[in-house]
Amino acid sequence: MLTSNDKKNELLLGIDGGGSKCKAIIMNRDNEILGTGISGPGNPLHGFEQATNSITESAQLALKNAGLEHISLGELVAGVGLAGVNLPVLLEKMLDWQHPFKTMHLATDLLIACLGAHNGNDGAVMISGTGSCGFSCVEGKHGIVGAHGFPHGDKSSGAWFGLQGVKQVLLSLDGLVPKTIMTPLLLEKLNCSDDTGLVEVVASQKATFYAQQANLVFDAAEQGDEVALSIVNEGAEYINDMAKTLAAKNPPRMSMLGGLTARLEAWLADDVKLMLETPIQPPEVGAVIFARQRQGKQAIKQSA
Amino acid sequence: MLTSNDKKNELLLGIDGGGSKCKAIIMNRDNEILGTGISGPGNPLHGFEQATNSITESAQLALKNAGLEHISLGELVAGVGLAGVNLPVLLEKMLDWQHPFKTMHLATDLLIACLGAHNGNDGAVMISGTGSCGFSCVEGKHGIVGAHGFPHGDKSSGAWFGLQGVKQVLLSLDGLVPKTIMTPLLLEKLNCSDDTGLVEVVASQKATFYAQQANLVFDAAEQGDEVALSIVNEGAEYINDMAKTLAAKNPPRMSMLGGLTARLEAWLADDVKLMLETPIQPPEVGAVIFARQRQGKQAIKQSA
Repeated sequence: MLTSNDKKNELLLGIDGGGSKCKAIIMNRDNEILGTGISGPGNPLHGFEQATNSITESAQLALKNAGLEHISLGELVAGVGLAGVNLPVLLEKMLDWQHPFKTMHLATDLLIACLGAHNGNDGAVMISGTGSCGFSCVEGKHGIVGAHGFPHGDKSSGAWFGLQGVKQVLLSLDGLVPKTIMTPLLLEKLNCSDDTGLVEVVASQKATFYAQQANLVFDAAEQGDEVALSIVNEGAEYINDMAKTLAAKNPPRMSMLGGLTARLEAWLADDVKLMLETPIQPPEVGAVIFARQRQGKQAIKQSA
Repeated sequence: MLTSNDKKNELLLGIDGGGSKCKAIIMNRDNEILGTGISGPGNPLHGFEQATNSITESAQLALKNAGLEHISLGELVAGVGLAGVNLPVLLEKMLDWQHPFKTMHLATDLLIACLGAHNGNDGAVMISGTGSCGFSCVEGKHGIVGAHGFPHGDKSSGAWFGLQGVKQVLLSLDGLVPKTIMTPLLLEKLNCSDDTGLVEVVASQKATFYAQQANLVFDAAEQGDEVALSIVNEGAEYINDMAKTLAAKNPPRMSMLGGLTARLEAWLADDVKLMLETPIQPPEVGAVIFARQRQGKQAIKQSA
C-alpha cells in the first residue's frame, strides 16, 4: 500500500482555484497522476470561506479518487494557485489560513498556469475564460497584463464578450441601434420576450453569467452579424496587443488557455497565432511543479 | 393646530426613492410644502427591507420637519415613486408591502420625475444621475428608453462615465493604451499608486462608486484629454439619440434631470439643447401630483 512515508513517492497536491471551480490533482515524485478532484469556486475574491472549503473538498476528492482515503491532508505538500491572490489583501488572508496540509505553497493562478503550460520552464500565457489576463515568467521576473476583474477590466474575457452582447441587445430593444441576429438569439436563450424580461434576468448577475453568453456573440459573428463582428474584433485586438506586450519580455514560449481559447484563437492576428504553442500541462500540474520548485529551494536552503 | 381632519388641507406625502437616497415631502391641498425629509436608499432593487425602511423613515422625518409629529403615517395619502418597480417582480413585492400609510399610490421614479418636471402635464424627461433613462408620458401612454441598470445598461449615466474612465486608466497602467490626464487624477483621487492598488479599491464596487468618478472624466475632457473627450462624446451621442427617440412621441415639453445634467448638457447637440426646458417641480412633488391624480380618479369612480 502506498503511504506518504514512502519517501521516493512523496505525494504532492496541486490546486487550481478559479472563480467557477477548484481543481485538485495528486501526483507522486515520478510525475504520475494518482487522482483528481473538482469542487466549487476557489477564488477568495468571492469569499474566503467558500474558497478554503473548496480547496479542502477538492483535495479530499482527489485522495478518494486515487484510492488514498487512508492518507490525511496533513501528510500532503500542497501547491495552491488561486485567482485573486495577486491582491495583497487577499494574499495576506490566504497566508493566515490555518490550512490542513503539511506545507502549503501559495501562488497566483497565473503563475501555476504558466508553469504548467511550459512544464516548469520560462514562458508566457494569455488566459481568456470567465476573466482574462496575460502573464510572463522570464528569468525569475514575473509580468502581469490585466487580471483586473469584472466589469472594470478583463477585456476580451468570456464575461466581457457576454456583457457587450447583452448591452447591444438591450440598446436594440430600445430602438437605439438596429436589431441584429443576437437580439432573437439572446431572448430565446434566456427565455425572455422583451427588454423588461431581459433586464429581470441580467440584473445583478456576475461575471460567470455573462461568460455563459459569450458563445452567442461568436455564433453571431460567424454568421456575419456586423455588431457581433465588431465586438469580436475589438476583443481580438486586445489579445493581439497583450501578446505583443508579453512578447517584449522575450519569453521562450507562449500559450493561450482558458475556456474561450478555442473560439477566440481563430480571430487573432496571424503573427500572434504563430507565437502560440500548445500548453504542455494544465494549471493544476503547474501547481505541483510550483510546490516542487519551492521544496527544492527549501532543500537547498537547508543544505546551505 | 393643523390636523388631517381639516378636509380642505388633507395632507399628501410624496416619496422619491432612488438608489442613493429617499426624499419625502409633505404638501397640503393648497400646494404648500409643509416639510421634507431625506433617508437612505429607497430602491427595492438593492433590498426590500432597506427600501421600505427608508420610505417610512423619510416620511417620519418630513412630518417632524413640518412640526406635525402628532399626525401618524396612517393618516397620510402617499404617492410613492421608486426606481426598480418597472420590473414586474419588484412591483409585485412593493404592492404586497404592508405599508403604514392611509393609501399608497405606487409609480416608477420615471413617471413621478416626468409629472414633476411638467407640473402634472404631458412631457418627456431624460435622467442622468447614478443611472440613466428616458421617459415620455403623452396622452396617457408611457414610453421608456433605457432604465436597464448597471453595468449592462444605463449608458451615459454617472456610473457609466465613471466605469469608462476606470477601464481606460487600468488599460493605461498596463501600457496597452497611452496614459492620459485621467491616470494621475484617478490614482490621486483614490489614493493609489499602481494598478494593483486601484483594482483593490474598485473590485466589487457598485454603480454609486463609479458615479462618483464621473466628474473626473468631465474634468479631463474639459482639459482636452483625448480619451476623456471620446468617452464624453460617446455618452452625449447616446443622450442625443435618446432625445430623438423621445421626441418622436411628440411630448409638448422635454426636460433633463439628475445629478449629471449640469455637466452633460453642454456636450449635447445644439438641436437637443434647444428641446430642453427647465423642470418645473422636483420628482417628490411629482409623486404628490401622482397621488392627487389617482385620488381624483378614485373620486370620479366612486361618484360614477
